[in-house]
Amino acid sequence: MRTVRTFAEARALGSGCVGLVPTMGYLHEGHISLVDAARRESDTVTVSLFVNPLQFGPTEDLGSYPRNFERDAEMVAAAGADILFAPQLAEMYPRDPLTTVTVAHVTEGMEGGIRPGHFDGVATVVTKLFAGLAPDRSYFGRKDAQQLVTVRRMSADLSFPTVIVGAPIVRESDGLALSSRNTYLDAAERIAAGSINRGIAAVADAVLAGERSGRQLERIAAAPVNEEPGIELDYATLANQDTASSLTDLDRPAFLAIAARVGRTRLLDNVHIDRTDAGWVPDVGIRLEGPSILYREA
Amino acid sequence: MRTVRTFAEARALGSGCVGLVPTMGYLHEGHISLVDAARRESDTVTVSLFVNPLQFGPTEDLGSYPRNFERDAEMVAAAGADILFAPQLAEMYPRDPLTTVTVAHVTEGMEGGIRPGHFDGVATVVTKLFAGLAPDRSYFGRKDAQQLVTVRRMSADLSFPTVIVGAPIVRESDGLALSSRNTYLDAAERIAAGSINRGIAAVADAVLAGERSGRQLERIAAAPVNEEPGIELDYATLANQDTASSLTDLDRPAFLAIAARVGRTRLLDNVHIDRTDAGWVPDVGIRLEGPSILYREA
Repeated sequence: MRTVRTFAEARALGSGCVGLVPTMGYLHEGHISLVDAARRESDTVTVSLFVNPLQFGPTEDLGSYPRNFERDAEMVAAAGADILFAPQLAEMYPRDPLTTVTVAHVTEGMEGGIRPGHFDGVATVVTKLFAGLAPDRSYFGRKDAQQLVTVRRMSADLSFPTVIVGAPIVRESDGLALSSRNTYLDAAERIAAGSINRGIAAVADAVLAGERSGRQLERIAAAPVNEEPGIELDYATLANQDTASSLTDLDRPAFLAIAARVGRTRLLDNVHIDRTDAGWVPDVGIRLEGPSILYREA
Repeated sequence: MRTVRTFAEARALGSGCVGLVPTMGYLHEGHISLVDAARRESDTVTVSLFVNPLQFGPTEDLGSYPRNFERDAEMVAAAGADILFAPQLAEMYPRDPLTTVTVAHVTEGMEGGIRPGHFDGVATVVTKLFAGLAPDRSYFGRKDAQQLVTVRRMSADLSFPTVIVGAPIVRESDGLALSSRNTYLDAAERIAAGSINRGIAAVADAVLAGERSGRQLERIAAAPVNEEPGIELDYATLANQDTASSLTDLDRPAFLAIAARVGRTRLLDNVHIDRTDAGWVPDVGIRLEGPSILYREA
C-alpha cells in the first residue's frame, strides 16, 4: 500500500476500476467492511483519510475528534487497500475555499435541522474527492443514512459517473452501531447508548410483523431511549431512502433513523427497510462476535 | 466527428488528453478559436452544446436565445472537433436538480450584482461538465471575464484536475466583441454598440501610455458609451483577474470590463491587462478581417 498526500499522486497510482472509501480516520470494522467491499469490486482501492473541518459546526468536536494515523494505516493496509490518500489541510484547502456544494430539501430534516451547514460541508468535500480522485465506485456506510441520501443526490445532480454503494451498519456484539465517536463514551454512557439499538431491533421486529405506520414505528423506536436515564432522544424518524423526507407510511424504501445524545456525545443509528420479493426486509446490519477494535485497543 | 447525447458516450469516446470547449451553441469565430486551441493541445476535442436554463434569470432571454444546431455541428466538425456533446434536457436534468454549486465573493460584483443566481447556474453546469466528461483541459473565452474567474475558482476549490485556459476575445472588423447575442441588434443598435469597443481601445492605449489609476481607466472606458445615444452603461470596472474584485490601481493582473444595454440586449466587453517582462500589456483580442459568420449568414 502507498500512502500519498496529493490528489495528483493518488490519481496517477489508480488504474482500472477505482473504488474509493472516504473516511475521517479512527477506523473501525465498519470502515473495513467498506474496504472489503471495494476490494471485491475494484482494481484499485483508495481509502481517503481527512478530518474535514467544513462539516463541523463551530461548537462541535473538530478539535477533539479522535485520531490515530498509525493504526489507521495498518488497518487499511491489512485490509488490502492499494492507496491511502491522507492529504494535509494545505492540499485540500490551499486557499480559503469560496465554493460550496449545497443539496436542497434532502438535507433539511433530521441531522440537517440539528447541524446547520453540516451537509454543505459533506457535499463539498465529497465533491472534491470525486473530482480529484475520479472513482468508478464509492463506498459509504448506511449508518449515516441522510449523508448517503445527500451524497447520492449530489453525485447524480452533478453527473459524476461513480457508482455509490451503501453498505450495512457494523455493530458491537451487543448491537451498538460502530462509530469513532463511541470512544467518547464512559461506562455508564455506554450502557445508556444500548437503548438505541433496542429501539432499532424493535422496529425491525415490528416491520417483519406487518407494522406499516410511520408514527407507530417511530414510537416503537423511541420507547427504549425514552425509558432509559442518561440519554436524550433528538429524533426517531421514518424517512424516504431517496429523499430523506418523513414518511407517513412504510410504502417505499425507507430508513428509520434515531439520533440521541449521551452526555456530550451524539449517536446515530438506523435500520434501512428495503422492498424485496419477500416483502419489506429490515437491514439491521452485522454484529461483531467480540468487541470492536475501538474497545480492544482503547 | 461524432455527435452524442449522453455523458457516458462522450466519456467512452475520449482518449488521451481530452480538451473540452463548453458552449451554448450559436457558434461564432470566438468559439472556433477555442476549438482551434483545444485541437492544438489535446488528443480528443469535445465541444459541448447546451443552453443551460440554470444560468438565465426569470426575465432573461432563455426562450429567445438563438439556436442553429445544423450550422453549429458543421462548424465544429470543420474545426476538427472529435465529439459534439449535445445533451437533451433529460440527460442534464433527469430530475429536478437539488444541488447548487456556489462560488462566494468573486460572483458578487459586476454581472453577479445585475444577474442574481447567474453564476450559481454557470458554476453548477460547468461542474457537471467537468464531473461527467473529465476533461484534462477546458477552454473559455476571456470575453466573459467574471465567468472565467468563477470557473477557475470553482475548479480549484473542488480539486478538479482540469487545466483552465482563457482565450483572447475575437472581434468584428470594427472591434465589436463577438457574441451570439449580437444577432439581436438592429442596424442602429449595432452602431451604438460600437462605442463599447472604443472605450476598450482607449483603455488599452491609456495603459500603454502609463495610466495606472483604476478610477481614471474606468472614466476612459465609460466616456465613449456615455457620449453615445441609444446605449446605457451598466458598469465600467477595473477588476482583479484572480478575484474579480474592484481595483483601486493597476497593480496586479486585471481586466477592465464594460457592460452596457442596447435596447433589450446586454453586451459585455473587456480588456485583460497582464504583467509581462515588458510591463503591463493589454490584451484586446483579435479582429476578424471581414464580417463574422453571425453577420455573413444572418
